[in-house]
Amino acid sequence: MAVTVKRNIGFSMIDMANVAYYPRIFDLAHHVFEEAWSVMCDVTYPELVNTRRVGFPVVSVSSTFLAPLRYGDTVTATVSIVSVGTSSLGWRYAFNNQDGTVVWRSEQMTVCVDMDSMKKQPIPDDLRPGLAQHLEA
Amino acid sequence: MAVTVKRNIGFSMIDMANVAYYPRIFDLAHHVFEEAWSVMCDVTYPELVNTRRVGFPVVSVSSTFLAPLRYGDTVTATVSIVSVGTSSLGWRYAFNNQDGTVVWRSEQMTVCVDMDSMKKQPIPDDLRPGLAQHLEA
Amino acid sequence: MAVTVKRNIGFSMIDMANVAYYPRIFDLAHHVFEEAWSVMCDVTYPELVNTRRVGFPVVSVSSTFLAPLRYGDTVTATVSIVSVGTSSLGWRYAFNNQDGTVVWRSEQMTVCVDMDSMKKQPIPDDLRPGLAQHLEA
Amino acid sequence: MAVTVKRNIGFSMIDMANVAYYPRIFDLAHHVFEEAWSVMCDVTYPELVNTRRVGFPVVSVSSTFLAPLRYGDTVTATVSIVSVGTSSLGWRYAFNNQDGTVVWRSEQMTVCVDMDSMKKQPIPDDLRPGLAQHLEA
Repeated sequence: MAVTVKRNIGFSMIDMANVAYYPRIFDLAHHVFEEAWSVMCDVTYPELVNTRRVGFPVVSVSSTFLAPLRYGDTVTATVSIVSVGTSSLGWRYAFNNQDGTVVWRSEQMTVCVDMDSMKKQPIPDDLRPGLAQHLEA
Repeated sequence: MAVTVKRNIGFSMIDMANVAYYPRIFDLAHHVFEEAWSVMCDVTYPELVNTRRVGFPVVSVSSTFLAPLRYGDTVTATVSIVSVGTSSLGWRYAFNNQDGTVVWRSEQMTVCVDMDSMKKQPIPDDLRPGLAQHLEA
Repeated sequence: MAVTVKRNIGFSMIDMANVAYYPRIFDLAHHVFEEAWSVMCDVTYPELVNTRRVGFPVVSVSSTFLAPLRYGDTVTATVSIVSVGTSSLGWRYAFNNQDGTVVWRSEQMTVCVDMDSMKKQPIPDDLRPGLAQHLEA
Repeated sequence: MAVTVKRNIGFSMIDMANVAYYPRIFDLAHHVFEEAWSVMCDVTYPELVNTRRVGFPVVSVSSTFLAPLRYGDTVTATVSIVSVGTSSLGWRYAFNNQDGTVVWRSEQMTVCVDMDSMKKQPIPDDLRPGLAQHLEA
């Protein structure tokens, strides 16, 4: 079951061509990723990172930019889990604009790390049920 | 033949985990892309965009993050052309750090557009020889 | 009467010292500025910029950073108008964190411009009543 | 004696009005600040921050934006020290474009901190001669 997050496209996302600059779409996806943790696992990403010192940096990305995002657009992002390994965690994103057009798709692999050493570690057990619940084929 | 561009990793690229935040690695790749135009086609990207109103937005990306980039690292980026179509233009990037470690790889498809309408248009003929010269299988 | 806007401090605002990087606090202030238009003048900033081609770029800033912002903090921003001239428009910001600590203050002067020519122009009359209503000494 | 640093205005600095977005001018100033350390004190800012765990966050800023910066402009930044206290360190910036026009001025106060605790500390003695040499009234 996918999690849904809404965000507006702000002025600072837009470039000279009047469309969202593509690295900032990845930044927007990171905001969606951060918000997904609360919904999926009932833990905030700040709590994971600040207190538990657990992080999930991106190790691979594939993305398709299907239509431009403009200033003032509202993105409805859906995000789900596509794989849960010992340390690796796969994500799938789709962004729709206010007209229902799919503007962006991405699959991303993240890996669970100790935020102090940046060494790979197993995904903590207490996070697994929430992730499993949002797993989609 | 690949083009080589050197860049330092600045303070503002780094996140709480003391590594470059991944959307900013895409931004760094865009800087490399901008610099590549002068070398490949003897035209600056500002001239293309500002004066000729021709742009090459990204339509798809795949990337692998192989090792972290740290504050003060020096990136040697190599960039080459992997495909030249009527409107589409494929790019391949590899970033090495100062130890020679490959830290990031990416393939990106861009499409030639009119910067005012954002409509697809053929790649201008005068750019084709320079692009062809940097084409790699 | 000040307008109040709430925003969370996201991962990408934070630097190596685990505090918000100061240029991104100015970016946050711009988000607050954008949201203020709807409340103050019943017009969105996207409508002003995209449709009416009216913008308010910053021409001067003074700011004090009183305490750090951390990842996961919630900012309550208050923003009011301090001066309305023919073209110039002065703003005052205060950011509080979730403990009620004032973390940031800023006064900023903006100027009304035609977004196409970037030439100074008078503030449109229909915006003046809303701005006047949020004017504070 | 001021230090001079040259930088190009990249695509990602530019907003919908075809001018550099003002928070990114502060980011550019931070790059200049980083480069100034090598010239002034013969130590890189990465060495200060990464190895010595000494940082100089901004505590107050005043800036004037005199003319727009456009895509492809070349900035010649001059930066000097205006005050050296026990912990506080004042900076003055002026940015000129390629036509010699002063586009931006800023005075900024920074404070020396321990990067781990973010507590104020005295400016290390070995940095003082270099800073003193670049002090301007």
